[in-house]
Amino acid sequence: MEQRNAGNPIRCKAAVSKAPGQPLEMEEVEVAPPRAHEVRLKIICTSLCHTDITFWRMKDFPGMFPSVLGHEAVGVVESVGDHVQEVAVGDTVVPVFLAQCGECPDCLSPRSNICSALPYRPGGMPRDGTTRFSLAATGEPVHGFLCVSSFAEYTVVDVAHVVKLPAGPELALPPEKACLLSCGVATGVGAAWKVAAVESGSTVAVFGLGAVGLAVAQGSRMRGAKRIIGIDLNPGKFEIGKKLGVTDFVNPNDIGDKNVSEVIKEMTGGAGADYCFECIGLVSVMAEAFKSSRTGWGKTVVLGVDGSAAPVSVPSFDLMRGRSVVGSLFGGIKPKDDIPVLAHKCLDKELELDDFVTHQMGFHEINRAFDLLTQGKCLRCIIWMDGACSEENGCS
Amino acid sequence: MEQRNAGNPIRCKAAVSKAPGQPLEMEEVEVAPPRAHEVRLKIICTSLCHTDITFWRMKDFPGMFPSVLGHEAVGVVESVGDHVQEVAVGDTVVPVFLAQCGECPDCLSPRSNICSALPYRPGGMPRDGTTRFSLAATGEPVHGFLCVSSFAEYTVVDVAHVVKLPAGPELALPPEKACLLSCGVATGVGAAWKVAAVESGSTVAVFGLGAVGLAVAQGSRMRGAKRIIGIDLNPGKFEIGKKLGVTDFVNPNDIGDKNVSEVIKEMTGGAGADYCFECIGLVSVMAEAFKSSRTGWGKTVVLGVDGSAAPVSVPSFDLMRGRSVVGSLFGGIKPKDDIPVLAHKCLDKELELDDFVTHQMGFHEINRAFDLLTQGKCLRCIIWMDGACSEENGCS
Repeated sequence: MEQRNAGNPIRCKAAVSKAPGQPLEMEEVEVAPPRAHEVRLKIICTSLCHTDITFWRMKDFPGMFPSVLGHEAVGVVESVGDHVQEVAVGDTVVPVFLAQCGECPDCLSPRSNICSALPYRPGGMPRDGTTRFSLAATGEPVHGFLCVSSFAEYTVVDVAHVVKLPAGPELALPPEKACLLSCGVATGVGAAWKVAAVESGSTVAVFGLGAVGLAVAQGSRMRGAKRIIGIDLNPGKFEIGKKLGVTDFVNPNDIGDKNVSEVIKEMTGGAGADYCFECIGLVSVMAEAFKSSRTGWGKTVVLGVDGSAAPVSVPSFDLMRGRSVVGSLFGGIKPKDDIPVLAHKCLDKELELDDFVTHQMGFHEINRAFDLLTQGKCLRCIIWMDGACSEENGCS
Repeated sequence: MEQRNAGNPIRCKAAVSKAPGQPLEMEEVEVAPPRAHEVRLKIICTSLCHTDITFWRMKDFPGMFPSVLGHEAVGVVESVGDHVQEVAVGDTVVPVFLAQCGECPDCLSPRSNICSALPYRPGGMPRDGTTRFSLAATGEPVHGFLCVSSFAEYTVVDVAHVVKLPAGPELALPPEKACLLSCGVATGVGAAWKVAAVESGSTVAVFGLGAVGLAVAQGSRMRGAKRIIGIDLNPGKFEIGKKLGVTDFVNPNDIGDKNVSEVIKEMTGGAGADYCFECIGLVSVMAEAFKSSRTGWGKTVVLGVDGSAAPVSVPSFDLMRGRSVVGSLFGGIKPKDDIPVLAHKCLDKELELDDFVTHQMGFHEINRAFDLLTQGKCLRCIIWMDGACSEENGCS
C-alpha cells in the first residue's frame, strides 16, 4: 500500500452536506493527515443508514453544516498517526461510530459497550473535537460526523473507532458485507444476541422491518426463536422478511380499530411476545412494543432513536408485572470484540447478509441512495467509491 | 392442633375496613370453611404494609368496602379443603399475595414469578372470585384482600398462596420474623438479589427508606455492594438505615436547587449509580431514579406501585445509552421456592430482621399501627392476635 501521502493532506472527493435535507454536493476536500491515535482510511465502500438521514434533516444542533456524513463503511489504512500500534498501513478495517478504548471501566466491563473515555461527539474527532476536513477551494472547515465521515474517498478516524477485520486470503470478507457490520446489521444481530439474549423457542416481535429490524429477525432465528412477528406499514417488507426469519406479519394499516399490541396478544394466545424490538425510533411505537410484551418476563429493547427527544412512557402497573425496557446503542456490540466474531460467522455462512444488499451504485450517485432509503425502497444501498465501482461488484 | 371446626364456619374477630381512609372497626365475622384447594389459617401475627394503606384509601375500585385488609402475616393451618396435599393441619405457614401454582408456564420458568394460572384478583378468592367472610350479625359479605386478608383471627387462603416454613424445633423462626417474609422485606431483598442481581463492589441508590427500601439496602450489602445511597425526606431514617447497610444519605430537602440525580452523579464521580431502586411508588421518583443510573449498564428497578396509574417516563436518548428499567412484583420472589431460602438465611443470622420490627401491639390496637405507618414513624409494626399478644413477644 502506498504511503506516499503520509504526513501530508490528501485532496479527494467528498459528498458534502451543505444544508438540511438538501442533496449532497460532490466537492474537492482536503483531508488532513492523521494526528496521534488516528488513522487515515481510503474508503472502499460505504452504505447509507437511517441515522445519516436523521442528522442530514436536522436544522439545529447536533445537525451541522457543511459536513461529511456517512458512518457505515469499510476501508484500508492509508497512513497512521503517532502511537498507533493496533493497525498498520494496508490493513482492511471497519470504522465504527462507537469507540472502544479498551481501558475505561466500560470497555473493561462485559456489561457496557459505551466507552466512557471517548464518548460520542456529534461533529468532531473524539479526542479534540476538531475536524480533518476542509474545502479545497476555500479552506473552509467541514464538520465530521459520528467519528467516521465515510462519504469521502479518504477520512480520518480515531484508532479507538476502527476494527481490524480477519486477515488472510480465506478470511477476506467481501467489502459490501464487511460494510454492513459497521452499523445497522451488527446493531440488529447484537440486540437479539447480547441485549435481549433471545432464547430458543421464544416469540419475538420486531417493530420496523428496515435493515436493523431484519437483522434482529435473523439474529433471533439464529438463536432458535420459534415465532418472529414483523410489524411494518410496507407490505413489501414481508417477502424479504421471510427470507431473514420473519414468520408472521402485521401491517398496522390492515387491522381495523385494533392496536398492534392487541393483535400480537391474540396471535400469542393472550400472552404477548417474549421479546419486543423497536427499530423505528418513535416513542409511540416504543409504548406499543412494551404493551405487546408478555407479563412475567417480557423485555422491550429500544433500538431506534427518537429524534424528537420525547420520553418513552410505559404504564407503571404493567411494568410492575415483570416487564422491562432496555435501551442500547449498536445492539450492545463492543466493536473490537464482537465485529470480528460476526465477520467469522459471515465467512462460515452462519450469518447471511446477501439479502440486506438491495442496491449498489457508484459514489457519484449517492443522492439516489438517499432517495431510495427515504422512500423505503431499499434496505442497504452499497455505495462504491468510483474507482472501486464495477459491474463485477454489482455497481449499476 | 384442633380441627373441631373443620367444615364449619368459625366466628371470630376481624378489623373491618368500612370506608376509604376511616378507622377499621372490630367486628365479629363468620369465616366460611375452606373450599377445594383452600386452607383456613389461624393468624398468629400480621403486620401493616403500605399497600394496605394504599387500598384502604382508595375511593374507587380496586378499593372495596367493607373488606378485611392485611396481607403480611404468619399463621397455622386450622383446616384444609379438598385436594390440599401440600400442607396439613398444624403447619406454620406464610400466606402471600402472589400465587405459585407450580404448573403454569410462569411457575415453570425461572424468569417469572407472576403465576399465570391464578392471576391477582383484588377482592376475592383466586379460583372463583368469591369471599369467605361475612358479618356475623347481618350476614353481609365482606370482601377479601390480595388473597390473604390477615386482619382477622382466621382467614381462608388458596393453597397456591401459602408457603410452609421450615419445620422442627431448631428451625422455628420467630413469628414476627416469618411475618416479614410475607411481603415487604422479601420484596426488597428479592429485588436486590433476583431482579437487579446486585454485584460485589456496586453502587446502589435506594429511593425511599421504608421497610422495602431498607430491605433492598440489606440485600445489596449482603451481595457486596460497596456504596449504598439512601434517599428519604425523613432524616430519622438514616440512623436505622446505617444499621441495615446504607452508607450515604441524601435528603431532597437539603440539596437546594439540585435534583437528587445531580447529587448522586456528583457522589459517584459523575457516573451515576449502577442500580437504582424506586421503593416509594411515585412516577416522578421513578424518573429521577432513572436519571441517577449509570450510562452503560445502569438498571432502575421499580418496586413501588403508583396509585395514580400515571406512566413512567424516561428520556429515550438516555435509555439508548445502555440503561434499563425493570419492574417486578414481590421483588421477583417465587413464594414457595424462595421464602424458605430466606427463612433459612434468617435462622443462620445472614439475614437480620430485628431492626425492621419497630413496634409491636395487640390486634385491638390495629388503628394505631395505621397512624404510625402513615406518619412515617415505624418500619414494621407487628400486630399480634390478642391471644398471642404478651409482654414476652414485645407486645405493648
